[in-house]
Amino acid sequence: MENRQVVLAQRPVGMVDHTTTTIVTTPAPTCGPNEALIKVGLVSIDPTIRTWMNDAPGYLPPIGLGDVIRSGGGGVVVESKSERYQVGDVVIGVTNWQEWVLATEENRFNVVPSGTGLDLATVMNVLGTTGLTAYFGLLDVGAFKEGDVVVVSGAGGATGSVVGQIAKSRGAGKVVGIAGGPEKCAEVVERYGFDECLDYREPRLTQRIRTSCPTGVDLYFDNVGGEILDAVLANIAMHARIVMCGAISQYNAMERPPGVANTSMLIMRRGQMKGFIVFDFAKRYGDAQLELGAMVLNGTLAHQEHLVHGLEHAPEALNLLFTGGNHGKTLVVVDDSVRLT
Amino acid sequence: MENRQVVLAQRPVGMVDHTTTTIVTTPAPTCGPNEALIKVGLVSIDPTIRTWMNDAPGYLPPIGLGDVIRSGGGGVVVESKSERYQVGDVVIGVTNWQEWVLATEENRFNVVPSGTGLDLATVMNVLGTTGLTAYFGLLDVGAFKEGDVVVVSGAGGATGSVVGQIAKSRGAGKVVGIAGGPEKCAEVVERYGFDECLDYREPRLTQRIRTSCPTGVDLYFDNVGGEILDAVLANIAMHARIVMCGAISQYNAMERPPGVANTSMLIMRRGQMKGFIVFDFAKRYGDAQLELGAMVLNGTLAHQEHLVHGLEHAPEALNLLFTGGNHGKTLVVVDDSVRLT
Repeated sequence: MENRQVVLAQRPVGMVDHTTTTIVTTPAPTCGPNEALIKVGLVSIDPTIRTWMNDAPGYLPPIGLGDVIRSGGGGVVVESKSERYQVGDVVIGVTNWQEWVLATEENRFNVVPSGTGLDLATVMNVLGTTGLTAYFGLLDVGAFKEGDVVVVSGAGGATGSVVGQIAKSRGAGKVVGIAGGPEKCAEVVERYGFDECLDYREPRLTQRIRTSCPTGVDLYFDNVGGEILDAVLANIAMHARIVMCGAISQYNAMERPPGVANTSMLIMRRGQMKGFIVFDFAKRYGDAQLELGAMVLNGTLAHQEHLVHGLEHAPEALNLLFTGGNHGKTLVVVDDSVRLT
Repeated sequence: MENRQVVLAQRPVGMVDHTTTTIVTTPAPTCGPNEALIKVGLVSIDPTIRTWMNDAPGYLPPIGLGDVIRSGGGGVVVESKSERYQVGDVVIGVTNWQEWVLATEENRFNVVPSGTGLDLATVMNVLGTTGLTAYFGLLDVGAFKEGDVVVVSGAGGATGSVVGQIAKSRGAGKVVGIAGGPEKCAEVVERYGFDECLDYREPRLTQRIRTSCPTGVDLYFDNVGGEILDAVLANIAMHARIVMCGAISQYNAMERPPGVANTSMLIMRRGQMKGFIVFDFAKRYGDAQLELGAMVLNGTLAHQEHLVHGLEHAPEALNLLFTGGNHGKTLVVVDDSVRLT
């Protein structure tokens, strides 16, 4: 059996292009004791993958040149020599961008319970890293409280859309999204139920945030960084909390970005900016997934998955996250025949 | 009786100069019921005064054109129609830059206990706003813990020097100052007992912080902002806390400053930046003053006051804070005849 893999050919400058990755074909791995062989069905496309392509320190080591692109994913167990996995189990974990992967002692997968009625794409979206990031970022890092005026950038994205919906369901005073373009903004309000959505491509964002949030922003969930972060900083309320989740405006920067100018507002308003990585909350994923899964099943958490077919299109799928060309959680379908429910 | 006052003549662009303020002479205020008349001895020179001269939102309203420059200060009660004050009491509070001030119901002063043996200049330094800012910023906002690697900018200044000494006395793993020029740096180590002091005027500050703090910076007390903040951000340890106290590198900026580029390190290292204003801790000043006063009396807290004589020199004294021309807490002696102990 052959294993097609997308490997890092050279480190990108700016957006990923056809020189960044190459497809190699290797023999599929064989299953040793305490291991299981997984046929990959979906791989996850996340902005953070772009950061791993740089030769720079991060929360994980950079992807090495010639290494398979690191990512989450899901699939089905086709052979098992481990007590943890049964043939036919749907599992999620670190698959990387390839067709086959081994579950090992070092690279464990989680078995998706078969009775939930949630398909794998939904699980990877809402119950996966993006949904969990929304949950812990808002509630733990951001210490959300009822009545908070919440602003969320990347509001049409997989994480942002969940942040806004949790905040609404828990009694936010107001939830304002920031997204790119009128279509995205309409989606944020109509599909995800935000009170408003501001288009960052239009001028005078700082003033528009002030109009939307006249008492100031209590909690800002930042997926974007850069100028949008500055515009929100100019409008924070006393004791505001800024959750630093990501900075997608910076990930493809070819030059040193201009930087955040309004940090002094943290002094004036006694605010805080706090960064986090969702992995730190791994022990509590179960509780969050219970709540998020229930919200999906009772219809209070809208979600959508943007499926791109073909492993070879994974690099273009990654670029969609930065151009705004995706709608919802972006996943690459590696093998259509893999059962996803 | 006449009252010389320094008033704001026009808003400065960049450093304060001879066009910024003017001296006016008005009749000294007269003491009404529940009021006391204070002869001002010293006024406090603090970087924040520069921010109040701008027509920009802040934690206090801007100083109005034609208004006396706002500042802390100390003096002696010469007449009292209030139960709170006795003639002869040494008091501290908001005097503004002038020779006479009334203590009123709205503008209350604190009576300095007469038995401490501490002179007014020391009280205004270590037990005043600058010392209290160091205390609450390090211990409460920064959640200092034993073993922390602490970096302090403006380390030769009134606040920074106290931060480092409290951190040392409470068991910091290492205390590294950042200051301008070899003379200041020597003072920070020799007089204030920091383990090291880095000269920000020399190149490669980021690399030198890395060398001094190979395990990363656990707590950064930032008085300066700008490039120095960026250099420290590049070196933060996991779960680092950055205390945003001030940003003196920005206060005279003629153009929009370049901004802070390395905020993504807060994500990578799960760090936080937190701003504060010492006034928020007013209810706990007494406890802090007890500890700080004891440290002075038992010789574990070195301090020095930089006295500038003559109210008319207050604007130049303010500029010293930005050029680094002061050594320790800068105070203007308004009247040499006022008893300071």
